[in-house]
Amino acid sequence: MNRDRWEMIDSIFYPSSVAVVGAVDEPDRVGFSQFESVLMGGFKGRIYPLHPRLETILGYKVYRSLSEIPEKVDLAVIGVNQFASLNVIEECGKLGIKGAVCIAGGYREFGTDGKALEEQLISLARKYGVGIVGPNTLGIINTDAGLNTTFYPMRLDQGKASFVCQSGGIGLTIINKAMDEGLGINKYVAVGNRSVLDIADYLEYFAEDEGTSVIGLFIEGTEDAARLARLAGEVCRKKPVVLHKVGRSDTANYAAVTHTGSMVGSYQMYKDIFGQFGVLVVDNTLEMVAACKALAIAPPAQGNRVGIVTHTAGPSIALMDQICNRGCDMPSLSENTVEWIRGEYGKSLTVVIKNPMDLGGLGMQQVPFGRICKAVANDSNMDIIVSIFCLHRYWRFPSPEVVAAMRQSGKPLVALYISTQEGYRQERDYLHANGIPVYNTPEEAAWGVAALAHFSKRNS
Amino acid sequence: MNRDRWEMIDSIFYPSSVAVVGAVDEPDRVGFSQFESVLMGGFKGRIYPLHPRLETILGYKVYRSLSEIPEKVDLAVIGVNQFASLNVIEECGKLGIKGAVCIAGGYREFGTDGKALEEQLISLARKYGVGIVGPNTLGIINTDAGLNTTFYPMRLDQGKASFVCQSGGIGLTIINKAMDEGLGINKYVAVGNRSVLDIADYLEYFAEDEGTSVIGLFIEGTEDAARLARLAGEVCRKKPVVLHKVGRSDTANYAAVTHTGSMVGSYQMYKDIFGQFGVLVVDNTLEMVAACKALAIAPPAQGNRVGIVTHTAGPSIALMDQICNRGCDMPSLSENTVEWIRGEYGKSLTVVIKNPMDLGGLGMQQVPFGRICKAVANDSNMDIIVSIFCLHRYWRFPSPEVVAAMRQSGKPLVALYISTQEGYRQERDYLHANGIPVYNTPEEAAWGVAALAHFSKRNS
Repeated sequence: MNRDRWEMIDSIFYPSSVAVVGAVDEPDRVGFSQFESVLMGGFKGRIYPLHPRLETILGYKVYRSLSEIPEKVDLAVIGVNQFASLNVIEECGKLGIKGAVCIAGGYREFGTDGKALEEQLISLARKYGVGIVGPNTLGIINTDAGLNTTFYPMRLDQGKASFVCQSGGIGLTIINKAMDEGLGINKYVAVGNRSVLDIADYLEYFAEDEGTSVIGLFIEGTEDAARLARLAGEVCRKKPVVLHKVGRSDTANYAAVTHTGSMVGSYQMYKDIFGQFGVLVVDNTLEMVAACKALAIAPPAQGNRVGIVTHTAGPSIALMDQICNRGCDMPSLSENTVEWIRGEYGKSLTVVIKNPMDLGGLGMQQVPFGRICKAVANDSNMDIIVSIFCLHRYWRFPSPEVVAAMRQSGKPLVALYISTQEGYRQERDYLHANGIPVYNTPEEAAWGVAALAHFSKRNS
Repeated sequence: MNRDRWEMIDSIFYPSSVAVVGAVDEPDRVGFSQFESVLMGGFKGRIYPLHPRLETILGYKVYRSLSEIPEKVDLAVIGVNQFASLNVIEECGKLGIKGAVCIAGGYREFGTDGKALEEQLISLARKYGVGIVGPNTLGIINTDAGLNTTFYPMRLDQGKASFVCQSGGIGLTIINKAMDEGLGINKYVAVGNRSVLDIADYLEYFAEDEGTSVIGLFIEGTEDAARLARLAGEVCRKKPVVLHKVGRSDTANYAAVTHTGSMVGSYQMYKDIFGQFGVLVVDNTLEMVAACKALAIAPPAQGNRVGIVTHTAGPSIALMDQICNRGCDMPSLSENTVEWIRGEYGKSLTVVIKNPMDLGGLGMQQVPFGRICKAVANDSNMDIIVSIFCLHRYWRFPSPEVVAAMRQSGKPLVALYISTQEGYRQERDYLHANGIPVYNTPEEAAWGVAALAHFSKRNS
């Protein structure tokens, strides 16, 4: 991407110092949360709150203006209103500050007067070369830099999934769901009105970003869907891109237009065109998180052939229902694998040796379960392995054996844990840390498996 | 339903005393978990473990046989193998024990010999009038009686949703998801091989059961889908029935046949026929739990017209996408409501007054949010109201006001909480206790809303 743009965006995600314009000391106001967010994110650089009268906020010395700050900051987080924001951008420009996050709404989405105001904002940004996130945005997060510029103070688990969202609320939905699901976030941006920096810019930046290994896009609508789809397709050659698009009904489309003033375009058109360029198009935020989890945690698959090892049949059937609709194959076990299982465990098995391999009661035992997972992982008919297990007070999932099976075979292995009570969190965190994504329902596991198959090497 | 059948099933769900046949004292064996489950469920009746040699298990006196127990028990939970189970059933019959849960597999799903064994089991049950759950089952749960006969020791939150599942694993998936989602369970049965008691029997029993206000069915396949659908339709006149059917691909169908030996039938056939009789057919376990949550917690809707109040647009658009595909309408606000909002808050609102009503920054304030929810709830154009809110450290959702709005209007109100960190659990539990189902993603909220619309009075 263009060097200037890259520098702008880099100033935003990796600043050495941050100014918070419009910080206040009253906890019920946005300007307080905004400032507290920057502190709570764990940012290691220098932080300067700005306010016309206050002396200190949360123990930090308050500055009157950007020019009073003893260094040139990299990023200005601007929490003042839409009119005052213009002056701040001009000051940024004059001081050579390259990055700004403009929170205030009241621009393009606000009718003719707002549109004119936004045009002024854009021309100031262009004149001085200031990169603006928003306006009308929740802001950005970068766990790599401990930076949170949203007005939702929180500290996220660090991970490899990054998100570009055309809605702060959907961004928060995905972030919260990701936290609940143990999916670490790397970067997040709510694009807002996209006056200066657009979806494509963030996408290009995330494509080159070392901390990001999968990119999730949430789109209400853009004017240049075809160009964006082509770009996303290029990015897919480096790392997976997953798209969730809303606005399927006329009513929803109308709401989207009044939200960020974007033209929306038909859902089917987006689905077709992004799909054609290799992007994985998902149906909802749950699928977005499930897909990104597999892609962020597991090694890439060589193909779309799925082998299942379970001790409970129902969930394997529900899983198969979903993956067979999503481009996966369920081949037979190879003769070698069948022979090996028959030789080792034939007497203990009460069922047919096949794929899915339902071990019944034998599957409650750690060693056989682990050894059979390993045999199926090493089966040359299989590209992706799913292990299904109901955690229990006394019977443990053979986590270390399954990790070993994944490492030895080099194939992605997905764990579906039916029960979430007995020691679930601890087991999940161990597996996640070792490259095995864990799910709690057959559908979410299927969405993860389908995402791995979609981006498999044979498919690209 | 037939009086004898009702008595059999009632002995199973509401026994005064329970015998656990095959209890053992080694924690890694099924017979131990089975016994511990009965204890952990909180069962208040008398409990008798049976074992040929042990004297006590977990402090309970052990009996040698059912006939040695000093009273006639109501329910025998049978954990011995498929051959020994036959003798136990015969003993039950001779002693007049009406209820039995047969855990062991190895019958019909096990080929010709197994089928013959199952026929012996059935003829014993018929001869003596013993009601059998299973065989080849995870068992039953009834939180109303503190009874858990599965070999997964746990104590569930009590609630109004009951489930009939043709898979223990899917049952555990639903139970665990329900616990995570704050949906209390009333009763649960894993039907197993359905040799004596079938899905229809449990459905009829749950239909008359006072503790159950919504019934979830999970089906792999039955021989009498049309009859079951007609029955489910009759039950729907009393209380909602939600169906999740699997087996959409040939591969999945084959797996289902080898699981419980059931003929499966086409997915579309089930969907059509159950839908025709008014049953809500859902796509996956997540939707099952989301739908049952709304139906168990909220009052019934009068119609399918949905009004949304939010302070964040994206999630409302994602929600609309889903509900507009599921038979809901999104009418305009009535003139009265628009006038009232304009009069009270026109100056603070930066957006058009419409449905969905996006309050922007104003929505962060508890009093306006609560008052506007109330106005939309009282709007004669609306049957179901959705309030969307991102929980925050300093801004609270107006929970008491929203509860008051629901009570005053008599209409169901659904809360979509975007953030799950700050005080979420506490806020959710308060709302659930007061008749307002809470969701974390637009899709789950939409599934809940669509379920309410499906079973609305105008629809029936």
